[in-house]
Amino acid sequence: MLLQLDPASQIPLYRQIRDQLRQLITTGALAVGDRLPPSRELATRLGVHRTTVANAYAELAADGWIDGHVGRGTFIAKGMDNHKNAPPAQPYTASLDNGYLWTMLMADAPADDPLDALVTSHFADARTISFTTARPAVELFPVEEFRRATSEVLRRDGRTLLQLGPSDGYPPLKEFLRADLRRQGLVFGDRELLITNGCQQALDLVRKVFLRPGDTVAMENPIYPGAIQSFRGGGIRCLGVPVTEQGVNVDALESLLARQRVRLLLLTPDFQNPTTSTLPLDARKRVLELAARHQVPIVEDGIYATLRLRGRELPSLKALDAHGLVIHINSFSKVCFSGLRVGWMVASEPVIERLRIAKQATDLHTDQLAQAALAEFGRRGWLAKLTKKARVLYRARLAKIESSFEEYFPEEVAWSRPEGGMAIWITLPAGLDASALLFKAREQNVLFTPGRYFYFQNAQLNTLRLGFAGVPEKKIEQGVEILGDLIKAELRHRRRAPEAERAARVALV
Amino acid sequence: MLLQLDPASQIPLYRQIRDQLRQLITTGALAVGDRLPPSRELATRLGVHRTTVANAYAELAADGWIDGHVGRGTFIAKGMDNHKNAPPAQPYTASLDNGYLWTMLMADAPADDPLDALVTSHFADARTISFTTARPAVELFPVEEFRRATSEVLRRDGRTLLQLGPSDGYPPLKEFLRADLRRQGLVFGDRELLITNGCQQALDLVRKVFLRPGDTVAMENPIYPGAIQSFRGGGIRCLGVPVTEQGVNVDALESLLARQRVRLLLLTPDFQNPTTSTLPLDARKRVLELAARHQVPIVEDGIYATLRLRGRELPSLKALDAHGLVIHINSFSKVCFSGLRVGWMVASEPVIERLRIAKQATDLHTDQLAQAALAEFGRRGWLAKLTKKARVLYRARLAKIESSFEEYFPEEVAWSRPEGGMAIWITLPAGLDASALLFKAREQNVLFTPGRYFYFQNAQLNTLRLGFAGVPEKKIEQGVEILGDLIKAELRHRRRAPEAERAARVALV
Repeated sequence: MLLQLDPASQIPLYRQIRDQLRQLITTGALAVGDRLPPSRELATRLGVHRTTVANAYAELAADGWIDGHVGRGTFIAKGMDNHKNAPPAQPYTASLDNGYLWTMLMADAPADDPLDALVTSHFADARTISFTTARPAVELFPVEEFRRATSEVLRRDGRTLLQLGPSDGYPPLKEFLRADLRRQGLVFGDRELLITNGCQQALDLVRKVFLRPGDTVAMENPIYPGAIQSFRGGGIRCLGVPVTEQGVNVDALESLLARQRVRLLLLTPDFQNPTTSTLPLDARKRVLELAARHQVPIVEDGIYATLRLRGRELPSLKALDAHGLVIHINSFSKVCFSGLRVGWMVASEPVIERLRIAKQATDLHTDQLAQAALAEFGRRGWLAKLTKKARVLYRARLAKIESSFEEYFPEEVAWSRPEGGMAIWITLPAGLDASALLFKAREQNVLFTPGRYFYFQNAQLNTLRLGFAGVPEKKIEQGVEILGDLIKAELRHRRRAPEAERAARVALV
Repeated sequence: MLLQLDPASQIPLYRQIRDQLRQLITTGALAVGDRLPPSRELATRLGVHRTTVANAYAELAADGWIDGHVGRGTFIAKGMDNHKNAPPAQPYTASLDNGYLWTMLMADAPADDPLDALVTSHFADARTISFTTARPAVELFPVEEFRRATSEVLRRDGRTLLQLGPSDGYPPLKEFLRADLRRQGLVFGDRELLITNGCQQALDLVRKVFLRPGDTVAMENPIYPGAIQSFRGGGIRCLGVPVTEQGVNVDALESLLARQRVRLLLLTPDFQNPTTSTLPLDARKRVLELAARHQVPIVEDGIYATLRLRGRELPSLKALDAHGLVIHINSFSKVCFSGLRVGWMVASEPVIERLRIAKQATDLHTDQLAQAALAEFGRRGWLAKLTKKARVLYRARLAKIESSFEEYFPEEVAWSRPEGGMAIWITLPAGLDASALLFKAREQNVLFTPGRYFYFQNAQLNTLRLGFAGVPEKKIEQGVEILGDLIKAELRHRRRAPEAERAARVALV
C-alpha cells in the first residue's frame, strides 16, 4: 500500500493522507479490520510530523472510517462496507451537486488559486511565524482615531454617504487625494482620478477597458500573483520581462516591444513585488520613451512607493509622463486599513471616463463609508503621521531581517537589498526547492511564500519571498534562524545523498 | 441654417445647441459679424425653454465664440476666424489626449451609458421632483443607530476588520445573514454564501465564471440596465424573454429554451425591475422544471423581494430549488445604506467556491467595515425594524401614486399594479414617446426614466418607470399632476396636428 504526498500541493498534508486512506478503503485495498500503522511510525515513513498523521487519523475516526483502541491500535471500522461502492472523494471543482454538473457550465477559469494560500494564511495560529504576506503591521493601526473619524463623517454627512453616490468616488476623498499627491509632485484634475476597491480592482478595470481576446500584455516576471490572476485567461497573452536588481530589464523590454505588438505594459518601478528592486531615474525615462515610440500605455503600480525606507525618492512614471501614456494605480492598503479596500487610479480624462463607466458596470461605486472615513482620517493629518510611523517600524524590521540573514543563512543564499516596501526576495542555491523548504518550515511553524507563486513563466523554484513588515523583530530572528538551519541541513543532506530527499516522501506502509 | 435637436439624446439640449452653433461657425456657415436670433426667438422656434438657449449662448460667449451687446443683439465674435479650420468638437471618447489616441487602444466597450443618467441624477436640485431612481428613502435611514453600530464594531474588532480578510466575507455578517434568511425559509451552509459589493458585482462575477464569447444569456426584456451592462458586449448574445403582468412569459421561455442553447437564465421573480410584475407560484415551479430539463442555471435576482407591500409572500426560486440550479443574488441596498455596496450570493458550494475565486481576483473582498457595521446593525434588530418602517412608508407612497394616477392621468394611460418594490411601470398610448415627454417634464422639474433604458431589444418607446419610494407624498401628487397635464396636452395636440410635434423640433434659424 503506497501513500504518496505532494509537499508542493496546496492541499494540506494531513488531508492528502486522509483522502488517500479513504480511497484505499473505498477501493478495497484496505478491508474492514485491517490495522493501520501507529501514527508515529507512519509519520517517520512519510517524513512528516507525527501530528500531521494524527490529524488525518482523527478526521477519519470522526467520520467513522476507522476505529482507535487504546493499547491495541487503529483499525478500518466495521460500517465501512457500505462505503465500498461509494465514488472516491473528488476535488470540489468536479463534484456533482444535486445531480447537476456545475463545472460543465463554467467558463475556463484557472483551476489553481495561488493567491488563496496567501490571503487565508493570516488565520494561522499565534505560534506561527508568518513571513507570507506583504501587509501592514496591524499593531500600528490607530483604531481609536479611525473610529473617531468614522463617527465624525457619519454625524456630518451620514445620509449622503449611506445613499448611492457618484461612481468616480466620494468627492471629499478625491479632494484630499489631489491635495496630498500634489505635495508629492503629482498634479491632476478631479476628472483624472477614479476611486477603486484597491489596486486589484484597478487591474480588473484596466482589463475590461483595454484588453480583448488575442491581446498581449507585457509585465515583469516574477510579479504579484493578483496581476497574473487579473490578466491571464480569456485569450490574453502575458509576456514576461525579466527583473534585475535595478528594476525591470529595459534592454529586454526594448527588444520585446520591437518584436511583439504589445497592447499594455504593467510595471512597478518602486520596490517591485516580489523582487523588491527599484527602477533608476534614467531607466524610468527610457521606459517612457520606449512606450511613446511604440504607443503602448503603461499601467504603473505605485502601491509600495510611499514606503521608501532608505535611498533617494524617485519621481513616479506618472510624474514624468509627458505623453499622457501612464495609468497610475495606487492604494491605501499598504500603509493602513487594507480591510477597507480603497485605492485609486490617475490617468488622462478620457481614460478615466472609460474606466469609470466600467467601474459603474462592475459595482456602481466604492463603499462611501470607507471613502469618507479615510478622507477624514487623512484630512486630520493622521494618515501622514501613520505613514511616518510605519516607515520607522519597517526600517527597523528590515535592518533586523538583514542582520539575521547575515547571522543564520549560509553564504550560498542570496537576498535582495530593498530600498523600501515590505518584503525581501531570496534566492537559494540552484537545485534547492523553496516549496520543499516550506513543507519543512511549516512543521516548525514558519511560513513564507515560495517564489513559484509569482512566476507566470519559467518559474525559478529556488526563490522565495519573506514579508518582514508584519513580523515583530524577535520573531523575525527566530524565523530566520529556523529557515537558516533547514537550509544548512538541506545543503549537508544533498552533499551526502542527492536522491534521499525525494525517496523519503514515498513510503511503503 | 438648420438646428436639429434630439430630445431623446443624453446630451443636454443646451449642449446640442451650443455644439451645433460651434460647428456652423467652424464650417463657415456662420461668419464673423453674423447676428444670431435673440434667445427667446430661437427658443420658440426650437420648442425649448428660453433658458436652454440662454445657457448655450452663455457658454459660447464665455469661450469667445460669440459676443453679446445689450440692446443690439448677439454676433459671431471676431477671433473666430482662427477657429475656422479647427476640427469640430468631438465626443470625449474620440479625443486626442496629449498626442495619444487612447480610444484606439480601448476594447469594444458600449459607447452609450444608460445607467449614468440614472445614477447621477440624484444631484438634481431640491426643486426637482425625481421619480428617476429606485433607491430607498433616505429619510428612513437611522443614521445615529448605524453610527453606534459602526463605533461598536470598531471598538470590539477594529484591528481585524481593518486588516485584509477572507474573500468570502466577514464571518459575523455571514452568520447574521444565514440566521436571518433561515427565518425566511432559505437554509444554507456557510460555504454556500458569498458576500459581494451589491447585486451589480454579483452579476459581474457570474459573467466572469460562467460566460465566454459566443454564449447566450436569456433574460427578461425590459430589465434593470445594470444587467444589460453586465452581460452585453464581449461576444455574449443576450436574448429577451417578454414579461407579462404575471412575471416572465413562461410559454415564451419554454419555446426559447427548446430552440436555443442558453447558458444562463437571469430572472427577477418578485416585482421585476422595471415592469414590477410578480411570477406566481405555479409559474415558478414550471420555470424550475424547464431549467432542470434543459440544464440551464438560473440567476435569481431577489433584491426587491423583502419589500412586499401587499398580497401573499411567495417562496423564492432558490427556496424551491430541488436541483441546485439556482444562484440567488441579493443586497441590502434596496432597504438601506446603498452607499455601502454590500450584497450576497447563495448557491451550491462548488459554485460559490468558483465565484469566490473570481471575487478574489476582482477586488480581494468587500470592505469589512461596511460588512461589520451591517452585521451589528442587523444583530441588534435594527435592520428588521427599518425594513418594517420602509414597508409602511412605501405602502403609503404606492397608494398615493396610484390615487394620483386615477385623478390626473387620462384614461388612455395604463400602469402596473405592483405587489411590492419601489416603482410603477407606465404604458402611454401607442405612438407617444416617453423620451419626448421627459424633455418637456424636465422643463417643469419633473424627472423619470423612459422605458427605452430598460430594453436591450425592441424598445417600447411609449413606456416609462416612475420610482415612488424616495418621493414624499406631496411631491408624488404634484409630479403626477404635471405629467398628467403634459400627457393630456400631447394627446390634444396630436389629435389636432399629428406631424406638428416633430416639425417643431426642426427650426430654420
